[in-house]
Order: sequence, then C-alpha cells, then structure tokens
Amino acid sequence: MMNASILKRMRAIVGSENVLDSLESRIAYSYDATAMKPQLPEVVVRPSTAEQISEIVKLANEENFPIVPRGSGTGLSGGALPLENSIVLLTNHWNHILEIDQENLTVAVEPGVITANLHAAVEKLGFLYPPDPGSSSICTVGGNVAENSGGLRGLKYGVTKNYVLGLEVVLPTGEILHTGGKSVKDVAGYDLKSVLVGSEGTLGIFTKILLKMIPKPEAYKTMLAFYSSMDDAAKTVSAIIAAKITPAMLEFLDNTTIRCVEDYAHLGLPIESEAILLIEVDGRNVVVEEDAVLIAEICKKHHATSIKVAQDERESTRLKVARRSAFTSLARVKPTTIMEDVAVPRADLARLVERIREIGKKNDVMIGNFGHAGDGNLHPNYMTDERDKEAFARAEKTVFEVEEAAIEMGGTITGEHGVGLYKKRLLEKMVGSPSVQMMRTLKQMMDPNNILNPGKVFDLKPKCEGRLPRDRDQIKKFEEVAWI
Amino acid sequence: MMNASILKRMRAIVGSENVLDSLESRIAYSYDATAMKPQLPEVVVRPSTAEQISEIVKLANEENFPIVPRGSGTGLSGGALPLENSIVLLTNHWNHILEIDQENLTVAVEPGVITANLHAAVEKLGFLYPPDPGSSSICTVGGNVAENSGGLRGLKYGVTKNYVLGLEVVLPTGEILHTGGKSVKDVAGYDLKSVLVGSEGTLGIFTKILLKMIPKPEAYKTMLAFYSSMDDAAKTVSAIIAAKITPAMLEFLDNTTIRCVEDYAHLGLPIESEAILLIEVDGRNVVVEEDAVLIAEICKKHHATSIKVAQDERESTRLKVARRSAFTSLARVKPTTIMEDVAVPRADLARLVERIREIGKKNDVMIGNFGHAGDGNLHPNYMTDERDKEAFARAEKTVFEVEEAAIEMGGTITGEHGVGLYKKRLLEKMVGSPSVQMMRTLKQMMDPNNILNPGKVFDLKPKCEGRLPRDRDQIKKFEEVAWI
Repeated sequence: MMNASILKRMRAIVGSENVLDSLESRIAYSYDATAMKPQLPEVVVRPSTAEQISEIVKLANEENFPIVPRGSGTGLSGGALPLENSIVLLTNHWNHILEIDQENLTVAVEPGVITANLHAAVEKLGFLYPPDPGSSSICTVGGNVAENSGGLRGLKYGVTKNYVLGLEVVLPTGEILHTGGKSVKDVAGYDLKSVLVGSEGTLGIFTKILLKMIPKPEAYKTMLAFYSSMDDAAKTVSAIIAAKITPAMLEFLDNTTIRCVEDYAHLGLPIESEAILLIEVDGRNVVVEEDAVLIAEICKKHHATSIKVAQDERESTRLKVARRSAFTSLARVKPTTIMEDVAVPRADLARLVERIREIGKKNDVMIGNFGHAGDGNLHPNYMTDERDKEAFARAEKTVFEVEEAAIEMGGTITGEHGVGLYKKRLLEKMVGSPSVQMMRTLKQMMDPNNILNPGKVFDLKPKCEGRLPRDRDQIKKFEEVAWI
Repeated sequence: MMNASILKRMRAIVGSENVLDSLESRIAYSYDATAMKPQLPEVVVRPSTAEQISEIVKLANEENFPIVPRGSGTGLSGGALPLENSIVLLTNHWNHILEIDQENLTVAVEPGVITANLHAAVEKLGFLYPPDPGSSSICTVGGNVAENSGGLRGLKYGVTKNYVLGLEVVLPTGEILHTGGKSVKDVAGYDLKSVLVGSEGTLGIFTKILLKMIPKPEAYKTMLAFYSSMDDAAKTVSAIIAAKITPAMLEFLDNTTIRCVEDYAHLGLPIESEAILLIEVDGRNVVVEEDAVLIAEICKKHHATSIKVAQDERESTRLKVARRSAFTSLARVKPTTIMEDVAVPRADLARLVERIREIGKKNDVMIGNFGHAGDGNLHPNYMTDERDKEAFARAEKTVFEVEEAAIEMGGTITGEHGVGLYKKRLLEKMVGSPSVQMMRTLKQMMDPNNILNPGKVFDLKPKCEGRLPRDRDQIKKFEEVAWI
C-alpha cells in the first residue's frame, strides 16, 4: 500500500474527493480493453489542471512510484494497464471543448473530451475532425493522441497525428511544455510534437490539445459489396486505388466475422459470403455520385455477388453497423477475444489474410478478420478462453506468428493500437536494434527516473525484450522487403 | 588545412575523384542561398552509398571535424553553410528514382533527386507528389526532407513531412538506421522519422527516402485577382476558407513585389494594385469549374479590381510566373536581399502585413512581401546592401523585429525555411526554454561529439543563444496567444 504521507500530499494537490483509494475504485481501474491480466493500482487520482499534474509527477519522481495515465481505458495493447505500485492518473473527467476557431480551422480541447462529442461539436458548424477510431463513442481525445489512433477514415484522411497542431504537455520531470500552435506551417526546431503523439503515456501527459479540422464534405455515399472469394475483394481494393479514387472508407470483413455479425445484429447479410467490402466515398455531391457508380462497376467487374448502395443517411448508418459491430459480435463467441492489429503494404492484403488463415488452421485457433483494407491494416480476432491454458497458449502463439508474418512482409506489428505491454516483445524485431536503442535513450533522457508508464512500448533493459533472439537475417529481410 | 592522413582515409573511402580539395571547389561550396558570410570548407566529399557516408561519419567522430551535409545548397537559413574546419558532404549527384510503386502509391528515391524531376516522373504516370518548394527546379529531395520544405501547395496538401513514409539515414555516430516503410499506418514505437525530418542536417544524413504520392487531380484552374487594398485581399482569403473551399494554391504578392515582377518579367500586371492573389483550385473537372466560379464571386464581393482566369495550361503557367518570379524580381533591385519566412495563424495575415509595413517604415528598409496567404506564411524580402554597414544593420534589425512580431501574434519565426544559422537567435523565445532544452538533449544524445552540422538550429551552450535575454513575460504572452 502507498504510504499515508504520500496520500496526504496527493490529497493536498487534487483535493480528497479526487484521490480514490477504496478497493472498489482500484478494481475499477485495474484493467483496460486488452486481454491481459488486471493489476490493482495503489490509488487513482483525478487532477484537473496542468499544474496539479505537474505536482503529482514531481511527487512521483521524489517518492519513486510509476504513473499510468488513463483516458477511457479503451486501449487494446495494455497502455492503460496499471503496473505494480503504480497510481492511475485519470483525465476523462476533464472534458471541455475550449475553442472552435472557424477562421483558422482549429479546435482546442481538454484531454478528456470524448472523440464522438468532438465530432458532433465541429460537424454542427460544418467541419470535420476526421480521425474516427472504432471506440469513438467512449474513447478520449487525450487517449487518441497518446496512441496516435487511426480509424475508419484513415485511407483518405490519415490518422490522429496528422491533425495535432499543438500540445500542452506535462513532461516526466513535471515540467510543462508547450509545443506547436495555430500556424499550420512551422519548422522552428525539431518536431517534438510528433514524438509526443503516439508515445503511449511514456513521455508526457497531455493537458491541452490543439487540433486541425477540415471543411465537412458536402455529401457521402455508403455501399456494401459481397464476394465469394477473398481474392476478388482484395483485387477490388487494388482496382479502386488504380482508378485513382480515394474512398473515405474501404473496410473489410471476412466470412467468420460476417457470420458472427449476422448472428448478433440480424442485418440480413448473406452469411455464405467470403468477404464484404464496406466502401464510403465523400466530397462534393456530383463527384460522390460519379465515384459511387465507378466503384460499383469495379466491384461487379471483380465478381461481387451483390452490391447494396445506401439511399439515405439512415440506410448508410445501417450498412455501417455491419462493420462497427464486428468486434462486439466476435467477442460474444468465446470467453476471450484477442484483437490483433497488423498492417502490411496495401497491395499485400490478400496474401496476409491467406497467411493468417494458414497459421490459424495450423494452431487450431478460430479467427475472425476485419479491418481497414484501404490501409492494409487488418484486425484478426483470435477467439479463445483464457481459463483454458492450452487453448490460450495456442492463441498467443498465433498472435506471435501472425505478427512475425507481417514483419516479414514489410509491414508492422501495430497499425493503430500501439505497442503497450502486449506487443513489445516483437518491437525490436520489427523496427531494428538502432531504432529501439534510440527510443530507449530518448525515454531515459526525458524520464530519468522512469516514472511515466514504465515498461510500456519497450523495457529499458535490452534483455527484457525477451522471448526473441536478435535475428540479424530477419531484420535484413525486413529491410529488403521494406525498401524494395 | 585538413591533415594529409585524414584526406588519405577519405580518398580510400569514396575514391580520389570524389574528394575535392582545390581552392576552386572549396569556394564553390563556401555558401548557400542565404545572405550570410561565406566560409571555406576544408574539403568537399561526394559519397555514393550509405556505407561510405557511415565510414566518413565515423572518421569525423574519430578525428573530430564537423560535417555539413548539402543537397543543392538552395536553403535560405544557412543550413548548408560550411563551418570552420568542416567538410561539405554532397548528395546531389546521387539522384536515381529507385521505384514507383503504383499499387501502394509510394516512390523511393536517392537523396539527390531534383524535386522537379520527381514531380515529372510521377505525374507522367498520373500521380502527384505535392510538396512544391519555390526552388523545385534545382533543390533536392534530400534537402527538402532535411528542411521539411513547404511550397505553393501547402494549404491543401501539406508539407514534406506529410509525405515521408520511410527513411534510410546515417546517424551522427555512423550507425545506419531504417525507419518507416510502405505501411501507411504504423505506430510501432516512437515516431523517430518525424524528428529526423526537418532536423536540418544535425541528426542524420538521408541516404534513401520513401515518399507517399497521391492520384493526380483530374483538372486545375488558375486565376489572378487584383486589389487596391491589402485588407480586401486578406478578407478574400478568409472568405474562401469560410466558404469551405480549399484551393491548392492561395498566394499573395504586395505592391512592391508586383512592381518588381512587372519590371523584370513584363507580364502586363497593373502596377498600381496593392495586392494580387494567385489562386489555383484542383480536383475533379466539374468541381474545379464550380469552385472557380465561386471564388471569382468571392473576389468580386471583396472588391477585386479585376480577375484573370487562365483558359488553358499555357495561360495558367503564365499567371503563375508572377508568383514564381517574385524572389528573382525582388533580388534584382538591391545588391542584397534578405528573404524572411514568418508565419502566423491564417486569420492574422493582414495584421502581420501591416506590422511589417510599420516596422519597415520605422527602420527605413524597402520591403517586398509575397507568400502563402492560405497558410499565413509570408516572405518579406528586405532589400539592402551588405557592403553598406549602416543600411545592412537596419535591415537586420527589421528581420529581428518582424520575427518578434510574428512570435507575439502566436506565429513562428520560420514556416518552411528552417532555423539554420540565421534564425537560431530567436528560437528559444519562439518555442520556449523547455523545448529548446529538449532539442539540445536530443542532439547530445544522438550526436555526442557534435559532428553533424553543429551550431545549426541552436547552440549546445545556452549562453550562445545570445543577443536576447530570456524573457519570461514574452514567452508567457506567446503561450496565451497560441492557446487562446
């Protein structure tokens, strides 16, 4: 237990009502959305200013306890999972939209703003904040920035980092740093902002976030295309890109996912389909109509068995339910679902799906695949039961082998969920030794006492990368694939 | 002079023909495009592989001499200016386009590829590489990445860093690092790539660059709008943004620039105009036509005295000549032209132009303004004569005061030209002390012997920031402006 004098100092910083140390509170914050073992934090604190956070971080440096920052805890790589002797630092109550600047196309928010609320607030004024993670109705913008979240609109609009203009951030030493601002172009010094975005709570705690918004597209059109072969679906994706069309969404579901979604949501999906593509185009009215016709032709040419085009917003929402409920639907099938997040160069998507199928079959693991086909970013879901040690071990072996396959194909172990605790064992194999060493040195330089989310992304001691020997040939191979 | 044994080792690494130590060669590389005092390098080397560069960098660490990397030397902040006892490391002869991957929309290049050649190569295949610096016909992609170059298409398409997917880079220790790849989404670890982009030759030398390209827009339309008041031109810019149109170019020239351009290029520009906007829209045919009409209406509504719309490609090129020849035209007027690069939030552009006018008048300096109105990024050009000490001092005072004005308005001292040697005196005031300290530590961590382009961007010793006392109030003020 945390000693009483530290608790007293915490209460003095944030007020007694914002220091939660009952067993109930500690249990409530002992896990995140990752299929990993929960860990009780010592205490949960709810600061509400950068200065309070700065004080807590300084206290942590003095008394040597780890801080685990947390938004809504929807992360899928264990980023918000507490550590031994750690405190959880909550930001999700801190949720005001501070300013929408329509002239400069910026929006300033507190870190706890729910992403969907941000969407709604700017859309009401005719703007769009494109990043759109699957969990947007519950996740926070602070968490999105910490994880550099992606989402369904990545192909056309990019990911969170493409929209972060400025940050107020408490560094691991307690210092408050301001970086960036409303100037859309700024090359004054190193791009510190980009290192902080996606640092998974290890390099700073965001206390104010300045984001870019764009004009909201005039219209959009949503369609589903059904296929009797994965290969045809993948060829459709390539053909759409080759036709120089960039859809706002270009999503994919495999047969297992289709069956589970239908079983859950009763949408009338043809459950014998091997693949569904969810495609949405947006932009000016006339272009959207043209693109929709072109895409439908491309789908037909690549043997789509049928195509559904939404005629209005209600129908569009309904078509998107198939994709949006994919994770929920798969998670019902077995007690434990491990959601993966590999990505490969877009053109290799079909090959990746095939490899995943082989690996799953070999290890006897049930897999449902869905994901962002346009980005080459796939979410295989391994359906298992963590109480069944043998079955769970087979599922984890599958995770590992699929990640290795992605690396071999010049891809990545994580397209948008982060490394956290769950994926760090393969980080070095993925990015190479010089990169991990550079990350370690950066962490040590910024967080000399290893206070902020220690052990996430990588361990400071190389031996802890564990499990995998450094494999020069593999890395060499990766480099060759990645660099033609 | 560099000692003979070092020269011998260099010759062994890159071959005698690639070690240039004649006085002529040294003079040829003693300056870049910045109005600063030339400095002879000890020797100029032309390596052609990452391994050769690695060897040279290791030699520099051993023998303790600085390396100044250089593309075409078109930089405007002294980034490629040699230092005392330094060697210049050329990459501009290393200029192959390695691969254009049409399926994954990527292009891999050697660092010496001329930006315009890259444009031409991908455009021939129906793609676009958007970054388009003013010097694109001579600058190199390696230099663009080192400076995170912007250009005329920044408003709609962003800057160089938005297109860098992967890098092969020789670090200051000689280690060769690979980061990024063809996966468009990748959150495996800290975003090292973004720190390297824009590091101005101080953190690494790029040896291979993987870039994103996009489908080439179907059509574009170019127009010039003339104004008898700067304020009307600025209001037009705001009104276009408010109308939710995002032009590919939204550029601005002031009266002095217009007169100089007309004097140089004889385009028939109305020289009494206070301002010209160059506007280009691109996209699908039908949308371009619609947008052009809308924009023309907005221009008229804001009192444009006349509008010229290009009817074909030839005419479009002709209209763009006015903007493209701005720097050349201004540079003819006086012996020395200092080209500035401040940026402010877009909505404050007119206010910045007004401030610049006041400062110029007070200091009796002739100023021609042009720049990227849509980005709030302005290039004031101070026309002076460096041989006239008193006049030159007044021009430099103006530079300094204009930069301070931009900082006070929540803007930046450099939108796209970099800090280099020329702007480092104001970097700390601009970004704040914690940020500069973080940059310094990062540099020291990556370049312990301070070998790569030392003294560029910032000095390692705080006292050398010189000239300006740390002014807490000013920084506080900046933060308030930048953060509403």
